[in-house]
Amino acid sequence: MNGKKGQDYVIGIDFGSDSVRALIVDAADGEERGAAVSAYRRWARGDYCDPQANRFRQHPLDYVESLEECVLASLAQAGGEVAARVRGITIDTTGSTPCLADESGAPLALSPAFSEDPDAMFMLWKDHTAIAQAERINTLAKTWGGVDYTMYEGGVYSSEWFWAKALHIIEKRSAPGKAAATIVEHCDWMTALLTGVTKAASIRRSRCAMGHKAMWHASWGGYPSAAFLDRLDPRLSELAASLGTQTYTTEEAAGKLCPEWAKRLGLATDVIVGMGAFDAHIGAVGGDIAPGTLLKIMGTSTCDIMIGPKPAANRPERLVAGICGQVDGSVVGGMIGYEAGQSAFGDCFAWLRRILAWPARAGLLGAGIDAAAFEDRILPALEAEAAKINPAQSGVVALDWLNGRRTPDADQALTGAIAGLSLGTDAPSLYRALIEAAAFGSRAIVERMRAEGLPVERVAAVGGVARKSPLVMQITADILGMDIAVSSSDQSCALGAAMFAASVAGLYPGALEAQKAMGAPIERVYRPDRERRATYDGIFEKYKALGAFAEKEMMR
Amino acid sequence: MNGKKGQDYVIGIDFGSDSVRALIVDAADGEERGAAVSAYRRWARGDYCDPQANRFRQHPLDYVESLEECVLASLAQAGGEVAARVRGITIDTTGSTPCLADESGAPLALSPAFSEDPDAMFMLWKDHTAIAQAERINTLAKTWGGVDYTMYEGGVYSSEWFWAKALHIIEKRSAPGKAAATIVEHCDWMTALLTGVTKAASIRRSRCAMGHKAMWHASWGGYPSAAFLDRLDPRLSELAASLGTQTYTTEEAAGKLCPEWAKRLGLATDVIVGMGAFDAHIGAVGGDIAPGTLLKIMGTSTCDIMIGPKPAANRPERLVAGICGQVDGSVVGGMIGYEAGQSAFGDCFAWLRRILAWPARAGLLGAGIDAAAFEDRILPALEAEAAKINPAQSGVVALDWLNGRRTPDADQALTGAIAGLSLGTDAPSLYRALIEAAAFGSRAIVERMRAEGLPVERVAAVGGVARKSPLVMQITADILGMDIAVSSSDQSCALGAAMFAASVAGLYPGALEAQKAMGAPIERVYRPDRERRATYDGIFEKYKALGAFAEKEMMR
Repeated sequence: MNGKKGQDYVIGIDFGSDSVRALIVDAADGEERGAAVSAYRRWARGDYCDPQANRFRQHPLDYVESLEECVLASLAQAGGEVAARVRGITIDTTGSTPCLADESGAPLALSPAFSEDPDAMFMLWKDHTAIAQAERINTLAKTWGGVDYTMYEGGVYSSEWFWAKALHIIEKRSAPGKAAATIVEHCDWMTALLTGVTKAASIRRSRCAMGHKAMWHASWGGYPSAAFLDRLDPRLSELAASLGTQTYTTEEAAGKLCPEWAKRLGLATDVIVGMGAFDAHIGAVGGDIAPGTLLKIMGTSTCDIMIGPKPAANRPERLVAGICGQVDGSVVGGMIGYEAGQSAFGDCFAWLRRILAWPARAGLLGAGIDAAAFEDRILPALEAEAAKINPAQSGVVALDWLNGRRTPDADQALTGAIAGLSLGTDAPSLYRALIEAAAFGSRAIVERMRAEGLPVERVAAVGGVARKSPLVMQITADILGMDIAVSSSDQSCALGAAMFAASVAGLYPGALEAQKAMGAPIERVYRPDRERRATYDGIFEKYKALGAFAEKEMMR
Repeated sequence: MNGKKGQDYVIGIDFGSDSVRALIVDAADGEERGAAVSAYRRWARGDYCDPQANRFRQHPLDYVESLEECVLASLAQAGGEVAARVRGITIDTTGSTPCLADESGAPLALSPAFSEDPDAMFMLWKDHTAIAQAERINTLAKTWGGVDYTMYEGGVYSSEWFWAKALHIIEKRSAPGKAAATIVEHCDWMTALLTGVTKAASIRRSRCAMGHKAMWHASWGGYPSAAFLDRLDPRLSELAASLGTQTYTTEEAAGKLCPEWAKRLGLATDVIVGMGAFDAHIGAVGGDIAPGTLLKIMGTSTCDIMIGPKPAANRPERLVAGICGQVDGSVVGGMIGYEAGQSAFGDCFAWLRRILAWPARAGLLGAGIDAAAFEDRILPALEAEAAKINPAQSGVVALDWLNGRRTPDADQALTGAIAGLSLGTDAPSLYRALIEAAAFGSRAIVERMRAEGLPVERVAAVGGVARKSPLVMQITADILGMDIAVSSSDQSCALGAAMFAASVAGLYPGALEAQKAMGAPIERVYRPDRERRATYDGIFEKYKALGAFAEKEMMR
């Protein structure tokens, strides 16, 4: 049943924050045959965004154009005979990245009337315009007297998520909110597009996306009740009604490639399109996820994924407070998928780079100097100097909530901080403190998971930061007090999508079996230093105190 | 009795942190006839300092060489007939900037054995190597059962001060601590040098320096008792014995110019050398000090000076808790001089400039780029952008204790902080938050003074920041909720010294009379904006909360 070497190929497609990557691999062993990346053109220009207001929108045409471009490029690289032997495609995307859509299921921004309206576009995961709406949802969930629909999402609904974002647009009472027939997650729209869906009601909804971000749960028969949503806004229950009650795991098929897209991509119409899901959940399989393993996807932010057994029959599911959610089948079938994460990880370091590059960006370098090249040299130089600083030496302690806090206990309105500053504090000390802060943020998640009964026995990491920054990884190992195994794949999300594609195409019985055959080896293991760990135990107390200050005093 | 125009000249000499300035003025009206600045050569190279360890030392030869240089240059500028008509010289210096000295009163570093030993040099005011010693002095003062010798110094002895610094060197048990016969403040050594003192016991000690920094007070007959100092270290009481019991106000003479220095400077031996004092106290007179006026000298740090009437006979002096001290005659005779201040003011902004210049300093600009010129452009560019930001707009709140806290309640071990950071926080927002933090630090001092019964009716400012940064001054006025009058003199310390020189030379009955005749006009008045003030009231609460956090959690 497994794919035979050279006979069966699968395509994993990974929509990231800035670009989409297509990866074509041999389904027998995961050997790469073609890969290509295509950046979102409008996004790269900064269109439709307002970073000061934390508004981040993406145009659906960015997705369509870059999807076609990178799949064609990867197929060209793979060579002539591969296209005819592609058996499956699976797509992962960022999330929650929802968009208002019309009766046909098409994002509103695809219609001429809304083509330039940011509220008719996808609201990228990190868009924080819906903070007030998340607060209303949380307050209502705790006080309305019915079931607390946030219970499987850590007990706190985030402004980054589906309903908060929908409510934000609806409350504006502007044209997009009035025109919408449904709302669709990025991952679900991509599969609907490739499978030729032409009715909103026919869009298959991802268990992963809806379970983690839209309060879908089997125990209450799907989405929150109309009685609940009406209290937020009657338009919200209208949109909820458009979603149906079913969701589908990533080991199920969305359909077959529709004739139009088969033609555009040069593929056959019998290619299976698997259900889409979020990058982290699919990337965890592309990495090294297994029961007991905390799989950290470390990039601009982190997603921290675990899987664990379902409760025995007639036993209640243990709720893990303060994480982003626990959803039956959100990672692989038959297991509970747990999601946590940090809203800013690499973004903390990018922030400092931007601060240090400010004079260059402001034109102070003078003519003839390449400001971008200058900026690119900043982080490597900081890393070299920060590595020479001992823990606690500088006295600087930072808080990593520069993009709010995702877990434990989501609150996107929270802010970061840096304390212990003196006139002698230099840029490398700030950089090291930000690395430590990001690692303390990881530790706070591990401690919460353990306190809530999730056994974190092992840490594995994938993603850009995991592979590119040995200093960050060593400090994280020291602060967690645990080994961290780093996967050699630099595209674990696309690889994970390819594994799922192989599974839905029938080449493996499930994704974990595909993982065994197609997975990338561990490249490096970071081991904690006992002495540094003890020092960091002390600094972690200050980190927590700084967090308590930020929660209490900066939120007034 | 007043000097007649064109007949009588006086020289004010102002030793700052980096350089010394000589100013020759007509004693009749303060008209400038010559001025020159000379930088400390060894200091400019960074010799004997370790900024990471907050060790800042200055070589006595830096003072000697630059003094001669700038006086000669200013006399040359003034023209031939002026030198013969110079009637008086008064010197102000930074402080507490003490140095161990030998039997002749000469700083130890002038002897070949100690010429390269930082512990035999002047310990600049901002040297913070004596934090542990200040703590011991404070603990002893509160617990030994005798008089609390810190009572006229705000109740808290600072690591920046005389006895803490002496104790720091003594406790090292190294050669300078063993060899010392006395310890001398910078201002007192300069007058001893010019008046030809050759015995430690003959050095006249400044009321201002000893009263504010060495716990001298008439009520206990001079310095703290041997019983007290012995408990700290017996060597300390030996040094105290060398100081005598008398101190002299700045309206008294130290002596006449000695033949050697008269020859070196080309002046007569009947020139009166006034008692020296600290730059802030003398600069307050050069500025606009009067009863009820808080005179802020705003530069890298601030000194905040007030004067007020002595208590009626048989009434106790009201103690002002948490300031740097209250000393009868420390500013002008017959009045109590009050001193407060902020350890870092302009230094907060210079810190951010250094952070932003780090990539350039680290060589990332590439060859052929002038990193220093680049750095000079940073603050003006930040100022232009920061002026466009409204109060509370960025959400960033900073704490100005980057160099510890001088007042209220001195504690040099405290550190600064920046909170409310998000990924959208840019460099101008950080800059504006640091300006606001420095102004909040000023407000904390005003509030303390008022709470302790000192009537702050008016604010006047002198110094580099006061004249050069309209944005800083406007924000400070908004945050204080008071007008701030800025003097047009850009050398109020040297001008104040010249006023004292005219007074001790007998040309005026006192310094305040000299101030009236010789003072510079007010150049600009900053008036607070009512709306911004109300916004800042709210942010001030967060500033105080951030301070409480830094005091409680970062000091553990």
